[in-house]
Amino acid sequence: MIVNAIENDLDLTFAALADPTRRRVVELLRIEPRRASELAEATEMSRPALSRHLKVLRDSRLVDVELLEDDARGRVYRLRAERFTDLQAWLDQIQAYWSEQLGAFKDHAEKTRRAR
Amino acid sequence: MIVNAIENDLDLTFAALADPTRRRVVELLRIEPRRASELAEATEMSRPALSRHLKVLRDSRLVDVELLEDDARGRVYRLRAERFTDLQAWLDQIQAYWSEQLGAFKDHAEKTRRAR
Repeated sequence: MIVNAIENDLDLTFAALADPTRRRVVELLRIEPRRASELAEATEMSRPALSRHLKVLRDSRLVDVELLEDDARGRVYRLRAERFTDLQAWLDQIQAYWSEQLGAFKDHAEKTRRAR
Repeated sequence: MIVNAIENDLDLTFAALADPTRRRVVELLRIEPRRASELAEATEMSRPALSRHLKVLRDSRLVDVELLEDDARGRVYRLRAERFTDLQAWLDQIQAYWSEQLGAFKDHAEKTRRAR
């Protein structure tokens, strides 16, 4: 069940990031938390179109909303670390492939050299 | 145009990996190159269903097919590094966020301590 939950989270993470506007929002939030109006302007999206993208990012928990204490109407979007950490963990596991392949190649080269 | 090509590649990469069966195929190929029949068995998919997933993985260039020299009918699937490298580069850029946030926090803590 835990494995299924992680699989499902990864589905949502990858699907959310398979869109250039949503990746652009993540890139903008990487610099600092921002309001929806700033994100709409920076991505050149209409507010309703951007809202749909922000909903996908929130549903996948890549992005969070924070209410500003000193501004009753103020809400800023910020990145959440957890899903990116999970994504990195999956990618680390896959990337071990190339280091292992390289290791196997080195072993082989080593043996070949010794055999001469 | 180069930027657009990379954006499009990232779209395909993330979309291809947003499916648990395709991630499972990538995980299996991380261990060693395999035939389609082995991948179908390991993922408990029918051959036609698996073929569709393999097509997505090939179209996104995450996976490649290699013909075996000593077996006229032999074809093995293997991982390609390039798209994973691009994915890692994008993720590195985003993950710099947390180290920068942590850096800013440390600077702030440092200044606060000195001011006492």
